[in-house]
Amino acid sequence: MTGKRRDRRELLRAVVAGGLGAGLVTAGGTSAAQAESVEREGELSGGGSVRVAVLLYDGFTALDAVGPYEVLCRVPGVTVTTVAEKAGRIRTDTGELGLVAERSLDSVTRAEVLLVPGGGERGTTTTMANRVVLDWIRHIHRRSVWTTSVCTGSLILGAAGLLRGLPATTYWASRSYLAEVGAVYTPGRFVEAGKIMTGAGVSAGIDMGLHIAARLAGDEVAQAMQLAVEYDPDPPFDTGSPEKASPELQHLALRLLADAAV
Amino acid sequence: MTGKRRDRRELLRAVVAGGLGAGLVTAGGTSAAQAESVEREGELSGGGSVRVAVLLYDGFTALDAVGPYEVLCRVPGVTVTTVAEKAGRIRTDTGELGLVAERSLDSVTRAEVLLVPGGGERGTTTTMANRVVLDWIRHIHRRSVWTTSVCTGSLILGAAGLLRGLPATTYWASRSYLAEVGAVYTPGRFVEAGKIMTGAGVSAGIDMGLHIAARLAGDEVAQAMQLAVEYDPDPPFDTGSPEKASPELQHLALRLLADAAV
Repeated sequence: MTGKRRDRRELLRAVVAGGLGAGLVTAGGTSAAQAESVEREGELSGGGSVRVAVLLYDGFTALDAVGPYEVLCRVPGVTVTTVAEKAGRIRTDTGELGLVAERSLDSVTRAEVLLVPGGGERGTTTTMANRVVLDWIRHIHRRSVWTTSVCTGSLILGAAGLLRGLPATTYWASRSYLAEVGAVYTPGRFVEAGKIMTGAGVSAGIDMGLHIAARLAGDEVAQAMQLAVEYDPDPPFDTGSPEKASPELQHLALRLLADAAV
Repeated sequence: MTGKRRDRRELLRAVVAGGLGAGLVTAGGTSAAQAESVEREGELSGGGSVRVAVLLYDGFTALDAVGPYEVLCRVPGVTVTTVAEKAGRIRTDTGELGLVAERSLDSVTRAEVLLVPGGGERGTTTTMANRVVLDWIRHIHRRSVWTTSVCTGSLILGAAGLLRGLPATTYWASRSYLAEVGAVYTPGRFVEAGKIMTGAGVSAGIDMGLHIAARLAGDEVAQAMQLAVEYDPDPPFDTGSPEKASPELQHLALRLLADAAV
């Protein structure tokens, strides 16, 4: 690395740390790679801002996107935007809820954090076969600081060729499909592999989102965001993973999912 | 009660139980009140369906609405719809995310379950002063089976006059305001008072949603929905309630909320 490049990196490091408090490029073991990634662009747009792009597609699962949004959107310096092939109303996997995609894919060429939510079977497999979306994911990934997914979103990252040989997680019922995209299923609410982070099913996006918040802005900000969303979970049951649920309950869960799918 | 009325109730009970499996009107201690409530309308619309109406308003908090939606939308017999003063795009409290309200208030005259999410200070207080919305809440409540809220949504129920003398909960930082609407702050992820159920802040809507699912369709379906959304929470920190967070962290959380509010 030349002296000039090192100086630029130091400058960027200061800009980002200033914008975010504890600081994007100082956290964790991948700081060098992250600084490289930021540096490749030359500069961040506007006072150390971190752009989080949440991909939406027909048939995505609402909580996969909204969980991370809710714990990231108030992190200092972070702006979240929703992106889809076409801007406008995007239907979830049940067809009953619509979220608005603020931007179209072609209008978003850069994001420090990419988040790909999972979806129902139709939404996931259709998106895994959508060349326009996969090209966009690869393009954003080239210069992202973090490329992340929730639930079956990891299969979409995999279809884009980003998970080959990497440890990853996904929705509990879809674990076996990770091998088909060349990834190695690894247990965990979220799994880090370099700058790629994959979350387990649906609600795991909240846990992963807090971890991303910590990586971006330090533990204190992430802890404050956990309090801000009063995330002190106390579910009335303890059946949230297949390891804790009988085969009959697993079967019922999959039937309810299939019956509600559109 | 006349024999005729009793027969009608028995019929409704069977219809609803048939539609929902374990059954709306058999669960919990309020079954008689629930059956009365259902009976007042004469009949449910279409094969034992349970309509969940989620109120949206400018400045609501996304996860307050989406958490319960995600665990209720696949419960057999349940349909979820979003309702606002005007149908169309409704902005969240950060201004960065839009959800689509499918229906306008005047087009929804009946719902078995009403869910009022919380919002930022502006969104909550504006809605607490909105006579059209409060009238609609009172109207829906008269014949609802469950009237529910998440976070500061309880203050909106309170402004509609529904919480006088009742135990209730709300967002951790807004607990003191419950007294101003005549309610009695009561700790808990969610608090039941007759057919009114109030949830604590933001993410508590997931826990409350699972409890509502159990009330509507029995424990097994609720447990299956917990698995369906892989809700096996494992946050990277343990600062999700004010009792677990230092005064400094509470201050930081409130500052992050204020700074991101629009």
